[in-house]
Amino acid sequence: MIKIPYTHYLSRLSHIRESLSRKKVDSFLVTDIHNVRYLTGFSGSSGFLFITKRKNIFITDFRYKEQSGREAQGWDIVVEKRDVIKTIERLSQKIGIKKLGFESSVSYNFFRRLLKGDLTLKAFKGLIERLRAVKDSIEINSLREAVRRAESAFLDIKPYIKQGISERALALRLEERLKKKGCRHIPFEVIVASGLNSAMPHARPTEKKLNNSDLVIIDWGGEADGYLSDMTRTLLIKGDNINKKREIYQLVVEANERAISLVSPGVKSQEIDQSARNVIKKAGYGEFFGHGTGHGVGLQVHESPHITWNKKEMIKENMVFTIEPGIYVPGLGGVRIEDMVVAKPDGSEVLTNLPKKTCDNTLGDC
Amino acid sequence: MIKIPYTHYLSRLSHIRESLSRKKVDSFLVTDIHNVRYLTGFSGSSGFLFITKRKNIFITDFRYKEQSGREAQGWDIVVEKRDVIKTIERLSQKIGIKKLGFESSVSYNFFRRLLKGDLTLKAFKGLIERLRAVKDSIEINSLREAVRRAESAFLDIKPYIKQGISERALALRLEERLKKKGCRHIPFEVIVASGLNSAMPHARPTEKKLNNSDLVIIDWGGEADGYLSDMTRTLLIKGDNINKKREIYQLVVEANERAISLVSPGVKSQEIDQSARNVIKKAGYGEFFGHGTGHGVGLQVHESPHITWNKKEMIKENMVFTIEPGIYVPGLGGVRIEDMVVAKPDGSEVLTNLPKKTCDNTLGDC
Repeated sequence: MIKIPYTHYLSRLSHIRESLSRKKVDSFLVTDIHNVRYLTGFSGSSGFLFITKRKNIFITDFRYKEQSGREAQGWDIVVEKRDVIKTIERLSQKIGIKKLGFESSVSYNFFRRLLKGDLTLKAFKGLIERLRAVKDSIEINSLREAVRRAESAFLDIKPYIKQGISERALALRLEERLKKKGCRHIPFEVIVASGLNSAMPHARPTEKKLNNSDLVIIDWGGEADGYLSDMTRTLLIKGDNINKKREIYQLVVEANERAISLVSPGVKSQEIDQSARNVIKKAGYGEFFGHGTGHGVGLQVHESPHITWNKKEMIKENMVFTIEPGIYVPGLGGVRIEDMVVAKPDGSEVLTNLPKKTCDNTLGDC
Repeated sequence: MIKIPYTHYLSRLSHIRESLSRKKVDSFLVTDIHNVRYLTGFSGSSGFLFITKRKNIFITDFRYKEQSGREAQGWDIVVEKRDVIKTIERLSQKIGIKKLGFESSVSYNFFRRLLKGDLTLKAFKGLIERLRAVKDSIEINSLREAVRRAESAFLDIKPYIKQGISERALALRLEERLKKKGCRHIPFEVIVASGLNSAMPHARPTEKKLNNSDLVIIDWGGEADGYLSDMTRTLLIKGDNINKKREIYQLVVEANERAISLVSPGVKSQEIDQSARNVIKKAGYGEFFGHGTGHGVGLQVHESPHITWNKKEMIKENMVFTIEPGIYVPGLGGVRIEDMVVAKPDGSEVLTNLPKKTCDNTLGDC
């Protein structure tokens, strides 16, 4: 477990305080649990931060009293008994807070209840999420380790990817290996989609057995120090009539590589998406690639930046995100190839190391 | 897999339409994914329902086009490309919708964007959640199966619960068995907390090894047909100086049984909480029981009703919820015993079958 130094948390917090002072609010309420973790190191599932000009207050309930005291260094722990909103109102009165910033990701319900109090409210959209999108070197090391664990687990189960095993049995085996490699939790249920099922981009593993000539999409991720990884490989089981499948496989590899070659600070996320999409469109498969090209990965498996057609986020150095074009042809099958990349001053570093050339990934077919 | 008959979905939907007509809105937007599943049977992770007087519209994205068509019988599938809110505005204009009901659990962000359109908005709090709290016989069968799988997995690993095994290894083994028993996913990370760690109600498993005289809290759950289970047992490893631990164990059993004996339609959730709390308070341990006595379980592991000190929900027949009092003494350890119960006309049925008498749960100490 790599422990993020206390000074890193202080620096994150000082970024937040600068924004608050620019927006002229004298306090800020953090409700998103991933943002709570990012600012404090707290790894539990319930906690709120109440940040004022001079105070760092961590509000939690009885269940996490001990853990928050241990993990959230430098925060005053307040254990709320009845209601976090009442606790905030009480503290605001005591400290003399008039204007409260809040995260716009909070529920409408919560917002309505905040509104009933005496505080003036101001919504902040994505304030901490934008900070989180750019990773520091400790975070990148954890992400690298999350990738390594996921790859190592995959290599352990690779010999089992063959005709006769069910999607579900394969997924289960991969999940077991991920845990064995040290992942505390699995970012999402492993996807194994074979044959016609692979034409569904988010199919769940079924009892269907892998067959000859099947395309097999495997989408999985690992974890290290709370940071996640996300990757996809597609394999083709040896068999007849696989020319069309090889063709779309090659196209997706090309789209993946084209997009990666474009990654660089200063590029807009839309342009990266466009570059992958164009490869697929030009070959006549545009309608079969309906999802975005990628997404940020960190404490959450989907976070900023969003690499898709209707987002124009500027790529910055040390943003970490996936590149995962796909083609899904009903009645034939699908291919998706997903890598994780870090934007670097001179382009990008690809964190995912597993091969993606057809030859390496076509079992018994090289 | 037990398939809920189409007529059940129709009946759920007609309940919703009645409420809408009472509240004078001509359409309703369902954003909570569990509520989407409850009304349609859709088991994917992204979908919105737009319910009008005459139409059932299922809005999803490219990824779930095929799956929603297959699972959401009787719904018109609309695949949105850019933005669900724009899709709703377009459809509203076409159909002639003026007033839109929405779920108050939606984010403030989403609400703000809805507000920018031409529709009059009305928030609904817990409309579907209240329906979901009362289970039908098919749901109860699934819950029963989710309990059975969890118990069967536990019995498989019981022989390993002894001095020398780490909390983490034990948790991992239990998770593996849960999957093997047929659980598609695990409702939450298995908790194994031993010795001093057991004094933290939501500790995550560590590398600490189980020791003689340790209290060991194991909190885990299973799944069947999307329905979940949640249970906790505490074991005491044979050793010296365990009198105090036995004492709090007995107290928690007593609190658990007292609360269960009170369960019956018409009782207020607060009263059930109070009955467990009083047993613990009277024995002088009141300050060491800081969480609520229980919570509903269904498609989510925490849902209505809330069995706690500040909620006065009326218990209805066929509500399913946990009873889980606990005592956590820093420096000594903790005990929690959690069962799942169904409220029945004449009291309750306890779904959890694992024994909870000390003798049964104290390894080598009977």
